[in-house]
Amino acid sequence: MQNKTLHFTKMHGCGNDYIYFNCFEERVENPEELSIRLSDRHFGVGGDGIVLICPSKTADARMRMFNADGSEGKMCGNATRCIGKYLYERGGVRKDVITLETLSGIKTLRLTVEDGVVSSVQVDMGAPVLEPALIPVKLPGERAVNATALLAGETRTFSCVSMGNPHCVLFTTGVAGLDLERIGPGYENDPLFPERVNTEFVEVLDPHTLRMRVWERGSGETLACGTGACASAVAAVLAGHCPLNEDITLKLRGGDLVIRYTGETVLMSGGATFVFDGVVQV
Amino acid sequence: MQNKTLHFTKMHGCGNDYIYFNCFEERVENPEELSIRLSDRHFGVGGDGIVLICPSKTADARMRMFNADGSEGKMCGNATRCIGKYLYERGGVRKDVITLETLSGIKTLRLTVEDGVVSSVQVDMGAPVLEPALIPVKLPGERAVNATALLAGETRTFSCVSMGNPHCVLFTTGVAGLDLERIGPGYENDPLFPERVNTEFVEVLDPHTLRMRVWERGSGETLACGTGACASAVAAVLAGHCPLNEDITLKLRGGDLVIRYTGETVLMSGGATFVFDGVVQV
Repeated sequence: MQNKTLHFTKMHGCGNDYIYFNCFEERVENPEELSIRLSDRHFGVGGDGIVLICPSKTADARMRMFNADGSEGKMCGNATRCIGKYLYERGGVRKDVITLETLSGIKTLRLTVEDGVVSSVQVDMGAPVLEPALIPVKLPGERAVNATALLAGETRTFSCVSMGNPHCVLFTTGVAGLDLERIGPGYENDPLFPERVNTEFVEVLDPHTLRMRVWERGSGETLACGTGACASAVAAVLAGHCPLNEDITLKLRGGDLVIRYTGETVLMSGGATFVFDGVVQV
Repeated sequence: MQNKTLHFTKMHGCGNDYIYFNCFEERVENPEELSIRLSDRHFGVGGDGIVLICPSKTADARMRMFNADGSEGKMCGNATRCIGKYLYERGGVRKDVITLETLSGIKTLRLTVEDGVVSSVQVDMGAPVLEPALIPVKLPGERAVNATALLAGETRTFSCVSMGNPHCVLFTTGVAGLDLERIGPGYENDPLFPERVNTEFVEVLDPHTLRMRVWERGSGETLACGTGACASAVAAVLAGHCPLNEDITLKLRGGDLVIRYTGETVLMSGGATFVFDGVVQV
């Protein structure tokens, strides 16, 4: 018979919400099973998954994240920002540069702090991958930038970028009014993408501002997708819509992210929010 | 600047989940606004709404409930069961019959208690209304039980019952496999129902067991609908599928409810579950 109490903190970054456990103090067993149970939005706490903030031998902390289906994720930009805020404001890590061990390597978090409160966190999301075979997308050439091909039933122009996961970016107008439920699956399952694809519909509002909606493979439309925002900014720079090495604001349904493509790596900045603290019997 | 802490408890009855505040101890201001903010499942606590458990001059307690859109509700069977469990186990009301003041009058909760734990709560949901004009449904006669008429594009046989809100009950087979997203709106918006309608698709498994799925007006398919379960049991008795004045188990997506139609009133029994306790800044 189990009857253990676990403390948790619910946080979100651009509406991407996880249940965070401070594993410097709490011991979480069977995180896969716990994530399935707690992520349920009616019978559990509700969230996109759980995140464990653990001690690390090589960085200030180590993150483990589990999706709502119990699978372990490698990294999530929105979650790393929340961890940065948590560690600074509640974890006693009073540094404005924090290192975080993840399954995608050690990430550096750069905090903007105002009166002891973390207002924004920047994380280096790594270099975009543009080679079609590595994304993967079945197109010839060294890159699929401004490629024109049959996609989702019509000839379209689009750009493909991997940020560790495959993205297809389309520049279009009237993004707010698109019926993604109807059109999304045609992109996601197009045979051009052997591992399916995340699709971003992006409107250029000005050279430093993009509006983006995303259809995520396996999830449908979501409020925010950090890697999708990075892929969109990279595609916008490569297509000449936005300048290299300058801040670009991405307006997502769940909030704003600021992306800068240096030509080598992609820097993503955004907020992180404490929602509530809770105690659950497990 | 607001900066007040509120304690809450998340509970569900058959997956119908609310955020409960003990207003014997907490003071909740602007509940309409709070419900909108906290019910959000990504940016808030997440729930179908908030419920305030308040002192009463005429009963053991008084409930106020607010839907996720901020509107105040009259009563909810699933929520009253949770309040019964809360008052007994945490509110110091150690009685197995508890009275609860609601906007639909004073409700009597009968608790089944095992080793100090409330395993089930019965609530009298009141008498069904069968007169078509009062439901309302545009059909002639004194009742619309086993009525045959054009509905959702085809000639169908169905029964109409109000439990304070209008229900249309259809007995059919293969309920688990129905595509409610596709077929539900045709019932909800049929011109027979001037105030739209909640539609129950009910399969008779045996004379004491029904499987039910519900399409709620304005909400789509939900995990459970207490008044829909009552309406379905009443319709099943009147149609001769189930006996009068005996327990009928309704198998809903969110769990089981036991309904008894005495011929005068409808008694509903079911479980209630503590999910977690939380603290939020408001």
